[in-house]
Amino acid sequence: MKPTKYYKIQIEYDGTSFYGWQRQSDEALRTVQGEIEKALYTLFNEHITIDGSGRTDKGVHAKNQVATFSVKSTIPGERLKYPLNGLLADDIYINDSTEVEKGFHARYSAKGKEYFYRFYCANQRSPLKDRYLAYVPSNVDLDVMRLAAEKMLGEHDFGAFMAAGSSVKTTNRTIHSIEFRRHENEYTMYIRGNGFLYNMVRIIMGTLIEIGLGRKKMECIDLAFETRNREILGYTAPARGLYLHEVFY
Amino acid sequence: MKPTKYYKIQIEYDGTSFYGWQRQSDEALRTVQGEIEKALYTLFNEHITIDGSGRTDKGVHAKNQVATFSVKSTIPGERLKYPLNGLLADDIYINDSTEVEKGFHARYSAKGKEYFYRFYCANQRSPLKDRYLAYVPSNVDLDVMRLAAEKMLGEHDFGAFMAAGSSVKTTNRTIHSIEFRRHENEYTMYIRGNGFLYNMVRIIMGTLIEIGLGRKKMECIDLAFETRNREILGYTAPARGLYLHEVFY
Repeated sequence: MKPTKYYKIQIEYDGTSFYGWQRQSDEALRTVQGEIEKALYTLFNEHITIDGSGRTDKGVHAKNQVATFSVKSTIPGERLKYPLNGLLADDIYINDSTEVEKGFHARYSAKGKEYFYRFYCANQRSPLKDRYLAYVPSNVDLDVMRLAAEKMLGEHDFGAFMAAGSSVKTTNRTIHSIEFRRHENEYTMYIRGNGFLYNMVRIIMGTLIEIGLGRKKMECIDLAFETRNREILGYTAPARGLYLHEVFY
Repeated sequence: MKPTKYYKIQIEYDGTSFYGWQRQSDEALRTVQGEIEKALYTLFNEHITIDGSGRTDKGVHAKNQVATFSVKSTIPGERLKYPLNGLLADDIYINDSTEVEKGFHARYSAKGKEYFYRFYCANQRSPLKDRYLAYVPSNVDLDVMRLAAEKMLGEHDFGAFMAAGSSVKTTNRTIHSIEFRRHENEYTMYIRGNGFLYNMVRIIMGTLIEIGLGRKKMECIDLAFETRNREILGYTAPARGLYLHEVFY
């Protein structure tokens, strides 16, 4: 009898051709979870459900998404990634596989996450950037964006920074850090926190971009914390620029 | 009666979904030339053949490909790009459009070209890089590659650096410069010359990578110039890492 093993895998993917992370009831919709579960079925001849650290939306990328699952198996954790990568398509790659303690759960055990968001500023769009970066049609003031970003740090009620229709117990979240890097006309925002509401990073990014363009004042952030009114904030920046970077345990 | 105008356009494209630059007799094969000619047909209601500065292969990208054509028109050169971009798909973009003198020809008037080539070194591949960079599975010695690249500079018989089956009058070409830039594990080679044979940049890149990995000695370059023997050199680096950067007039 094979022993039950508890595996943790780290996954990189180009989200462009996926209908998000979560397996859909419509099997015609290609999802990251669905593709990995299909590969696991081929490998173990068993239907295995994997738990992701969280969903990523249609078009969102990941550098190190994390998922856990258990199965009766003799494959050592470190080796599991090799047969899996052999079975997966080119736009998903298992960066790492290990064995974890029973009870370790990709989502419930997570203490925090880091995302990054990439955009470029130019007066014309660039087909060579459009797959992985959002397009902003004029220059942003990065100093102003950094100041505005400071307002997000710490614990706040991010109820306004959430797509309509989501239901969660509390909309309080803590942001640990926001950092910007710039290379020529390409910008990356790194954002780390204990958890993120649905579309929260994209609304933060869209709001900071509009502040950087002078279209919004940074005080709209304080007002949004008070009023929880989504309308006060900026646009939801597109999925293509967003990457789940790391999950912390 | 509308006057004949001579237009020059600069084109950026993501080559991934194209069967190269050149229009194919099989119309099911999507090409950059074919897509632009289709847009011109919609705009001018006339079949116009455009002349590119040269062909790019299936999968090769361009930052500033150049093409010329003439048509009876009243659209000022600088404005032509707007309706064209409105008609083109997302993976092609006309960066610039101008009017030129009669007799100016994208290919025959060209004095030189610059390409760049991108690759990354890692012990695992990365789906987020694979569309635009070639994968090299271990670290290269950049100092050795720079030394080897110096051997290419100036005029040489590059007959060995050419895919089989191409027919050209002379295989002598002059390389003006080769420069490397590195950012973390990503490398870019910029190469400028008066002209390039079929697959020449990709064979130069593959050879320099193999030299950088210690699999070939840099003396193979001298020997290849003498013997014109393709076998002596490295592999043909994949199309996905290659970009036509600029055409000089």
